[in-house]
Amino acid sequence: MFSDIFENVKKICPIIHNITNYVTVNDCANILLACGASPIMADDIEEAADITAVCSGLNINIGTLNSRTVSSMKLAGKTANKLKHPVVFDPVGAGASKLRTQTAFDLLEEIQFTVIRGNISEIKTLISGSGTTKGVDADMADKVTEANLDDAAEFVKAFSAKTGAVISVTGAIDIVADASKAYCIRNGHPMMSSITGTGCQLSAMTAAFVTANPEQPLEAAAAAVCAMGLAGEIAYQRLTPMDGNSSYRNYIIDAIYNLTPAQLEKGAKYEVR
Amino acid sequence: MFSDIFENVKKICPIIHNITNYVTVNDCANILLACGASPIMADDIEEAADITAVCSGLNINIGTLNSRTVSSMKLAGKTANKLKHPVVFDPVGAGASKLRTQTAFDLLEEIQFTVIRGNISEIKTLISGSGTTKGVDADMADKVTEANLDDAAEFVKAFSAKTGAVISVTGAIDIVADASKAYCIRNGHPMMSSITGTGCQLSAMTAAFVTANPEQPLEAAAAAVCAMGLAGEIAYQRLTPMDGNSSYRNYIIDAIYNLTPAQLEKGAKYEVR
Amino acid sequence: MFSDIFENVKKICPIIHNITNYVTVNDCANILLACGASPIMADDIEEAADITAVCSGLNINIGTLNSRTVSSMKLAGKTANKLKHPVVFDPVGAGASKLRTQTAFDLLEEIQFTVIRGNISEIKTLISGSGTTKGVDADMADKVTEANLDDAAEFVKAFSAKTGAVISVTGAIDIVADASKAYCIRNGHPMMSSITGTGCQLSAMTAAFVTANPEQPLEAAAAAVCAMGLAGEIAYQRLTPMDGNSSYRNYIIDAIYNLTPAQLEKGAKYEVR
Repeated sequence: MFSDIFENVKKICPIIHNITNYVTVNDCANILLACGASPIMADDIEEAADITAVCSGLNINIGTLNSRTVSSMKLAGKTANKLKHPVVFDPVGAGASKLRTQTAFDLLEEIQFTVIRGNISEIKTLISGSGTTKGVDADMADKVTEANLDDAAEFVKAFSAKTGAVISVTGAIDIVADASKAYCIRNGHPMMSSITGTGCQLSAMTAAFVTANPEQPLEAAAAAVCAMGLAGEIAYQRLTPMDGNSSYRNYIIDAIYNLTPAQLEKGAKYEVR
Repeated sequence: MFSDIFENVKKICPIIHNITNYVTVNDCANILLACGASPIMADDIEEAADITAVCSGLNINIGTLNSRTVSSMKLAGKTANKLKHPVVFDPVGAGASKLRTQTAFDLLEEIQFTVIRGNISEIKTLISGSGTTKGVDADMADKVTEANLDDAAEFVKAFSAKTGAVISVTGAIDIVADASKAYCIRNGHPMMSSITGTGCQLSAMTAAFVTANPEQPLEAAAAAVCAMGLAGEIAYQRLTPMDGNSSYRNYIIDAIYNLTPAQLEKGAKYEVR
Repeated sequence: MFSDIFENVKKICPIIHNITNYVTVNDCANILLACGASPIMADDIEEAADITAVCSGLNINIGTLNSRTVSSMKLAGKTANKLKHPVVFDPVGAGASKLRTQTAFDLLEEIQFTVIRGNISEIKTLISGSGTTKGVDADMADKVTEANLDDAAEFVKAFSAKTGAVISVTGAIDIVADASKAYCIRNGHPMMSSITGTGCQLSAMTAAFVTANPEQPLEAAAAAVCAMGLAGEIAYQRLTPMDGNSSYRNYIIDAIYNLTPAQLEKGAKYEVR
């Protein structure tokens, strides 16, 4: 199944509009090209709607948000909703500042996202503001482990039910869920956290995958997570003793470039709960 | 001839002011250093004229334009014109949004460019607005091929005559032309399009080449195109089975770093029409 | 001693708030991760104080300053001062435009820096405006050499006494000094100047080192300079004939990733004057 999903990305070559941070933007562009998609980066409000319209999917990332770009995110998101284009949201750093947290809440309020992808702490921040629960800290651990995986999966499903978006939570174990089904994914390597932007890159790639597979956003988002994790594994195998996080960054993008749909199918490590 | 042109870059080490997009800016800076030039990136209107004045060439790229930076581009461009510094224009995405197209037209109106470098679609957008022709789409194909090369070269020459700028159109076959002479260049490799920013990098390097060779903007722009294409060929040879577009990006900049004027002379594949 | 300082970085994993330029920001983030620290990039005034507060150190770099980000730098700097967080200042391009020079003076006036790190030309610009001296050009050479090293060290000490900051001047010979003691450092390789952003990366890493070693800012800043230089030496050894400045950039970050405290201790080449 994941092989067909990835095949569609390569066949359709979706153009993805990215309003994203300036830290990892180059890597996001290169990983989109690596997986077979095409990136456009454009964050000015004067062109946000135009660019959204010429693309087929949208990726919003608040990593270096400012008042100018937040307005563009809102306009682009609403435009994408009108055009029925998939929209991915990466709430980078939600919880770290009032601006980020409030912006994330506002975006959730005004835009219907197809996928929300973040780490557990960001997703918990979103959940806390969405009114789905009280006492998040008590209810959901700070880390997804084998011990709390079932509980975590239920939590993520509940947030998906509330938002109508597929929720993609990445960490040592990744959970990608809609309201009724959770993919628990065990691809990846711990060294990925020593590179800036593997999360941002995954969000961009997720936008490509769901855009090329509009009927299966859950499976497409899960496939993107598996692809990124698998690339992290392949790239890790390639490291020489002198290589570090900078070469690892290049090798991960290279691995996506060389990954075939069949390899993704074979290498994806997941179970459904 | 191209060897002398490249030699001048290495001898003069021109400092190039870049107002460029945040996606590929790091690669632009590194390729300028690789070819022997020096980059300064500065996009605030409060310093645009000052920085243009301490540099000897200017590179304007609208890849992630916004209202703040467009004003800086205009001021920097006019300052460079007054100081008789070469100015290169890269109309990234002209045609993709009204803002980009209109900004490109405005810049063409207000600034005398030394070189305009873009892909065929961007250049066609500029031509359509410059009043040189009607029915661009009918007159000029979307791709330069052996079959339409003569027609395309005439088209590019006509646009050069209209604008007074050398026009550098890159694609499978590149055309670099002034009003009377067109270099048709066959360096490069298709995989270059799987990296973000090879065009941006070429524009930056073109600025270095024309700045170091102010009497020969046509030849300098053609030499830059050959250098970039040759670097793409050399870097491609170096790829191992695990390498992908991210390593390829590094190898291209590395190839420019190691390219000698003699190698450029020998490796340049062009004819004049 | 440098081994303990570096050990502290790895033990404490300080989170560093960076308001820095968009040219080299990705490399700054990756080198912070490589040395064991954690980066946050945030430049909007609405969140600058919040982010400073959740971090333990601040790195201000004016490489692509604009009016929006300068306000954020000031607010973040004052917040860090109030919270007694170390603050590093990289006055990129001070002297190249009135805006940069004036902004640098303003920041010096309003913020108490822990370390100021720049090249000799930038530091001379700061000194000229700080009232410590007349005729800087006559008094301090444009390049630190063996012949003028004693004079240069005295100059740097005097500027440290005036500002209360450790001054870190990098070049062929680096000088890191407080009012009474100057580390003269001979690590590094000339090829480092062919990469954009080794200075920016060093400033980011300096912030991590002083944040993890708040009682020894002088030694911590000197250790960071030695680490960066040593990484430049190790990475240079690794270069193959086809490698150039782009691979060298990756190898330097890789070398920081693999550098151990013991190797830093052993490889640091300095004397105290």
